[in-house]
Amino acid sequence: MQNHRITLQARPVGIPGPEHFSQETGPVPALGPGELLVETMYISIDPAMRSWISGTSGYARPVAIGAVMRAGGVGRVLSSKAEGFAVGDLVQGRTGWQSHPVLRGAETQRLDMSLGTLDDWVGPLGTSALTAYFGLLDIGQLKPGETLLVSAAAGGVGQIAAQIGLIEGCRVVGIAGGAEKCHFLRQTIGLSGVVDYKSEDDLAAAIQRECPRGVDVYFDNVGGSTLDAALINLRPDARVVLCGRISQTVAPEPHGIRNLGTANGRRVTIRNFLVFDYHDRYAEARIWLSAQIRRGLLKQKMHVVDDLRNAPHALGMLFRGENTGKLVVRVHG
Amino acid sequence: MQNHRITLQARPVGIPGPEHFSQETGPVPALGPGELLVETMYISIDPAMRSWISGTSGYARPVAIGAVMRAGGVGRVLSSKAEGFAVGDLVQGRTGWQSHPVLRGAETQRLDMSLGTLDDWVGPLGTSALTAYFGLLDIGQLKPGETLLVSAAAGGVGQIAAQIGLIEGCRVVGIAGGAEKCHFLRQTIGLSGVVDYKSEDDLAAAIQRECPRGVDVYFDNVGGSTLDAALINLRPDARVVLCGRISQTVAPEPHGIRNLGTANGRRVTIRNFLVFDYHDRYAEARIWLSAQIRRGLLKQKMHVVDDLRNAPHALGMLFRGENTGKLVVRVHG
Repeated sequence: MQNHRITLQARPVGIPGPEHFSQETGPVPALGPGELLVETMYISIDPAMRSWISGTSGYARPVAIGAVMRAGGVGRVLSSKAEGFAVGDLVQGRTGWQSHPVLRGAETQRLDMSLGTLDDWVGPLGTSALTAYFGLLDIGQLKPGETLLVSAAAGGVGQIAAQIGLIEGCRVVGIAGGAEKCHFLRQTIGLSGVVDYKSEDDLAAAIQRECPRGVDVYFDNVGGSTLDAALINLRPDARVVLCGRISQTVAPEPHGIRNLGTANGRRVTIRNFLVFDYHDRYAEARIWLSAQIRRGLLKQKMHVVDDLRNAPHALGMLFRGENTGKLVVRVHG
Repeated sequence: MQNHRITLQARPVGIPGPEHFSQETGPVPALGPGELLVETMYISIDPAMRSWISGTSGYARPVAIGAVMRAGGVGRVLSSKAEGFAVGDLVQGRTGWQSHPVLRGAETQRLDMSLGTLDDWVGPLGTSALTAYFGLLDIGQLKPGETLLVSAAAGGVGQIAAQIGLIEGCRVVGIAGGAEKCHFLRQTIGLSGVVDYKSEDDLAAAIQRECPRGVDVYFDNVGGSTLDAALINLRPDARVVLCGRISQTVAPEPHGIRNLGTANGRRVTIRNFLVFDYHDRYAEARIWLSAQIRRGLLKQKMHVVDDLRNAPHALGMLFRGENTGKLVVRVHG
C-alpha cells in the first residue's frame, strides 16, 4: 500500500500555496507495537497552520523543511497493533497531510459515535467547535441577554461561536466579508445583525449601527483594524476574546491597535487562549455540543475541497477569505 | 477673605500649561447649609487631568471653559455649616485649583489621623496609592514570587505599585526615564532591576535582560511603545494592568500596539480599570496601606511645587517627565 504525503519545502512569506509544498508517494511502513495504520477521510485546514510553517507559533514547534505537513484529521483504521483500536474504527488524530498515516494509539482518539456522525466529528464536535465553546463561555464569560459580536463569523470557529451565542439567549452580530457569507449568517444561522466589512467605509460606525447598546463580548478571529473598530464599541465590563488574527498572519505590515484602553469601556478584559489548554474538559464540552446538535440548534457549514493533493491550495483559500464555513479536505470517503 | 482660583481658558492640544488657564481672585461666598469653607493645603496633580480638560475622558465630564479647574486636595476647615465637620478638621475633597474652596460636607471626607499623618494622606494613603493597590492586587492578581514590571515606576502610582510588589514578595523591575529616577528606584525603593528607557535602544531587550524569566504582571502607566515592549516579554498566564497611558495623552500620533496576541504569553489577561469603581473598598485598602507605612515598608516620595499659581506649570511637568515622585502643589502649610 502506498502513502501519499505532502511535505513542507519552503517557509512562506505571505499567503502559503502549492509552491511551498512537495507531493510525494512512498510505501507504508510496517506497524510497530502501539501503532495503527489509518486511511485518512477528512483533514482540517486551520489558520494556525500558517504559524506552524512560518515558525512564528508561540506554542508549537515549526514544521521542519522536508517533514510531512502537520494537520489534524479523521480516518478509518486499516490495521492495528495498538490496544483499544480495531480495524474499521473511526478515529481522529494528527494524520498530517497523508493519505495513509501510521499513528500512535496513545495520541489517537476513537470517535464516540453516540455523540454524533462522522460529519459532526469533523464539524460541530471538532476542534474549531471546542475553540468556540471554551473561548466564549470560559474566556468570554458570555451571559444571557448580552450582545455578542463575532468576527469571521462565517468561518470554522466563528459560526459555532455565533450559534452558541444564540443558544445562550444573546443578541449576536456577525462580521464577514461579502454578500454570500452575510446572507448565510442572516438567513441560515439567524443572526440579529450582520456587518459586511467589504462594503462598509467605516467599520466602527457599522458595528455601532448593529450594536446600538454596545458590545458585551467580542469574539475576535481576525485582529487588526477590525479589533480596533470593535474596541471603541465596547460597553463597561466587556470581554474581548482574542482567538485568532487571520488578518495579520499574512499582512505585509501589521496594523497597530490604537483603541486599547481608550475605549468607552471601563473594566474591559482582553484575553487570549489556546484550546489545547482545555484538553481535560473536551469531553464535557462535546456532551454539551452534542446535545445542541440533537436539538437542531447547532450545525456547521463545511467547505469541502476534494483530493489531498489540493491541501496546499486550500490552505491559501483561508487567507484569501474564499471559504464559507469550516474548510476541510476530503481524502477518502 | 479672598479665594484665589484658576479657571480653564482653552482646551490644550499637546502639553497643557499656563497659557490654557486664567488666575482669578474673588470674595469667598457665604456658606449655605451643609457647606464648609476650607483652606487648601495640598493639591494633587494627576495625568487624568489632561483628559478632563481636553474632553477625552471616558468617565468624567469635561471641565467647562471658564470653570475652576477640577482637582483633589487636602485642607483645613476654616468654618463649617456641615454636620460632622468642625473648625480645624483636616479634610480631603474636590478642592479644585482654589485657595479657599467652599465644599459640600457630603462630598468631603474628614482625614482619619489614626491611619497616618497629613503627608501620608497626600501620599501613600491618597488616591494614587489606592489606584496602585486595587490595580495590582485585584486587577493584576499579583502573587508572591512573581515578577512584576512597573512603568513610570518613579511616578505617583508607579512607586506605590513597586513597593506593594516588594511587600508581597515579588521580584520587581521598574521602568523610568533618566539616571536620577533610576537611582531612586534602585537605592531608595530597592527594586531588583531598573530599565532607563531614555538610555536603551531596544526596550524589549532591556526588559528581557532585567526579567530573564519573563513578566507575570505588567503594571502599565504609560502605554504606547513601552506597552508593546512589555507584551513580548510576558509569561504564560500573565496579567497586564492598563492603569495609565501618559505617553499617549499628548502624543501627536498614537502608537499602534502590535504585540497584542502575538506574545509568547498564552492565556494573557489585559484589563483596564478606574479606581473610583472601588469606592466601597477604600477603607479596607487604607487600613492595609497604613499598616505598611507603620512597618516602614511603604513611603511616597513627593515632588512638591510651591504656590497655587504654579499649578498650570506643574501639570505640564507630568507630561515632560520632570517629576520624580508624586506631584503636588503646596498651597498653604
